[in-house]
Amino acid sequence: MAEDYRQMWKELGLDLGAHDSLLEVLGKGYKDIYMTQENRPDGMKYFDFVISQVHGARIKELLDGKARGRKVIGSFCVFVPEEIVRATDSTLVGLCTGAEFGTEEVERVLPRNTCALIKSAFGFKLGKVCPYIESADMIVGENTCDGKKKSYEVLKELVPNLYVMDIPQMKSVQGRSLLKAEYQRFKTAVEELTGVGIDAERLRKGIEIVNNKRRAIHRLASLRKADPAPISGLDALLANQVFFYDEPVRFTNSVNSICDELEQRAKNGRGVFPEGTPRILLSGCPMAVPNWKLPWIIETSGAVIVGEESCVGERGTRNLVDESGNTVEELMEAIVDRYFQIDCAIFTPNPERLNHITEMYNQYNAHGVIHYCLNFCQPYQVEAMEVEKELEAKGIPVLRIDTDYSMEDMGQLKTRVEAFIEQIS
Amino acid sequence: MAEDYRQMWKELGLDLGAHDSLLEVLGKGYKDIYMTQENRPDGMKYFDFVISQVHGARIKELLDGKARGRKVIGSFCVFVPEEIVRATDSTLVGLCTGAEFGTEEVERVLPRNTCALIKSAFGFKLGKVCPYIESADMIVGENTCDGKKKSYEVLKELVPNLYVMDIPQMKSVQGRSLLKAEYQRFKTAVEELTGVGIDAERLRKGIEIVNNKRRAIHRLASLRKADPAPISGLDALLANQVFFYDEPVRFTNSVNSICDELEQRAKNGRGVFPEGTPRILLSGCPMAVPNWKLPWIIETSGAVIVGEESCVGERGTRNLVDESGNTVEELMEAIVDRYFQIDCAIFTPNPERLNHITEMYNQYNAHGVIHYCLNFCQPYQVEAMEVEKELEAKGIPVLRIDTDYSMEDMGQLKTRVEAFIEQIS
Repeated sequence: MAEDYRQMWKELGLDLGAHDSLLEVLGKGYKDIYMTQENRPDGMKYFDFVISQVHGARIKELLDGKARGRKVIGSFCVFVPEEIVRATDSTLVGLCTGAEFGTEEVERVLPRNTCALIKSAFGFKLGKVCPYIESADMIVGENTCDGKKKSYEVLKELVPNLYVMDIPQMKSVQGRSLLKAEYQRFKTAVEELTGVGIDAERLRKGIEIVNNKRRAIHRLASLRKADPAPISGLDALLANQVFFYDEPVRFTNSVNSICDELEQRAKNGRGVFPEGTPRILLSGCPMAVPNWKLPWIIETSGAVIVGEESCVGERGTRNLVDESGNTVEELMEAIVDRYFQIDCAIFTPNPERLNHITEMYNQYNAHGVIHYCLNFCQPYQVEAMEVEKELEAKGIPVLRIDTDYSMEDMGQLKTRVEAFIEQIS
Repeated sequence: MAEDYRQMWKELGLDLGAHDSLLEVLGKGYKDIYMTQENRPDGMKYFDFVISQVHGARIKELLDGKARGRKVIGSFCVFVPEEIVRATDSTLVGLCTGAEFGTEEVERVLPRNTCALIKSAFGFKLGKVCPYIESADMIVGENTCDGKKKSYEVLKELVPNLYVMDIPQMKSVQGRSLLKAEYQRFKTAVEELTGVGIDAERLRKGIEIVNNKRRAIHRLASLRKADPAPISGLDALLANQVFFYDEPVRFTNSVNSICDELEQRAKNGRGVFPEGTPRILLSGCPMAVPNWKLPWIIETSGAVIVGEESCVGERGTRNLVDESGNTVEELMEAIVDRYFQIDCAIFTPNPERLNHITEMYNQYNAHGVIHYCLNFCQPYQVEAMEVEKELEAKGIPVLRIDTDYSMEDMGQLKTRVEAFIEQIS
């Protein structure tokens, strides 16, 4: 990321000095973690490029779009329906988090025992180093966990354009009706923001674009069933992370290209690690760019990750929206149907998630499950204990990890992960 | 509490040894904290008696009622509408919490960073020392905070009769409709449990009984405006705590008797502390019996508490249910109207609470606000920072305290509270 973008960042109001330091750390981290991997698919070069340009060319692309009237909507959660945004030719992007930044300043506005994901998002905002949040015409918060729900009250004071979406807590008739009403309200808000009325044709187009992204990711996931695994967990996670940032059609094509390559690999019995490498299913909290700590530890400890039961992973991309509706009303129902199935831990009870973990464990021929929680994430921490109990009852090896974005516990985590891999080998 | 009840406790399945130890600690704590107070109203003798019999005569009374067909319903939250329970001649009781118990065992089923209130409730259940939960025909959980919402999934495995009530997170049309549907569902569940159909007459009777409890508590609150304060914060808190345990008509009469006495005191200018004693408004998380730690520290440090902005306090008892409806439907609407106003921190946004804190500060002629949070209670911890900011902007002195049920931080808390009282004196 070169000089060309400094003026753009300045105009966005970024703190150039802090932003330079951030990019330097991230660039080095990426090089150390990603570029040291062996046997990577050639197609990953595209994602290397995307990451190198995630604050550069991609932001310029968004701003060029804005200059032509295309709006940018930022979000922190997979419950924000991208289909509705796409239906107005607008762009939905994930907002920055995933790395420790400005913790001291954050703890002046949020409780210390807030999870790393939320603290990080606030750190990027307060430190003025996230070009996405500064480019967004609308920022969508959602009432998922207590941490996010309440911190949006604080974020509202920091940004001029926060929109809060309510989310149900139970998969009841009332819960579905609340989600539907909220998606209708969101549709109206997006129409008002963009000046574009959403008709059936536009909405179906939006659904198709997003479904195609999901289809490509499903294809990628399916190819990971092979032994040897044709792609590392780190690289597959990267594709799932870029899902939230990239132009969707280009993203879909790029993932499909990789899949073509992986199919060849599978045919030739070629993989990133030797056949018989212990296979891990990762389950739990989402891992946003650049939160690669735990996958890196796992894959440098003699195992390969074969699936992510996570919002940045299969929980986020599972199920398509039915494209067959003829009216806006029918298509909106189909959108609600799809999103209402997401098995986030904010729902109570949430038995679907337990089933999905076992299903994925079997489907991807895993040897063990590593459950990952951010400290202070109460919904996933409570479920972690339920998951552990359930998997142990089924004789599935499980390791429960609670951590944050700091590097302080690296040594301790590595020791625990190595012992677990030893146990399942 | 004498030998007479040992057989009863045994039949309830309590762990008699652990229960004996608990009662001994609680009895000693009560004596040290309550019986050392000076100038207490005579009427407090009734509450001393209630507390001495809270695991004894009161449980016998509930069990005698059960033998005659009267059901007992246990709850952890002020969102469970007692009116509906009363309408079937059943009894709603608060379930045990408020003291550290069996923490090690609790942390095997719940995350360590769960708030003390939830951990304590689980400790009482796992340790078999809560006669209320063992007497209950139905236990009502509610989806308020993440901690409670998710821990009910765990509680469901420990008790045979958990009923979970969904609660909205926003004061929207959809939110009210969800609460109404959930209260209707609860009404049906209580009717099924008791075999009693709720008609308008029964429901109005239930509303009147509970309103009368609230009226008495409102009267008590109002008398605390006087300087010198006619009753200590500890004693007023006790009345608010007993609100959740006692037979309601007897409770109402007892509170009104104290109020008669306090009116006399006010006329005679008599109080529990000298005129001009610094006056504190306590605001934040609920304090269940026997969680008297912070009020005790405050009132042994030269100040008097003149109001509790808390679920065990004014947040829990504010507003009456309109009794004028003629049909079940109208009365149910009135119940929903009343409860939907509760300004719990689980709602977002929750500006009413900020207003109520300032109102109470003025109304009770307070000199400062002490905001009390349980560690890991994210909703109130985020609001604490908003409250602090708002009060400071208004020039109202505020002290923010985060703690739990342990006694380890007593010294540190006392130092901070003393410094605050010194500052507002």
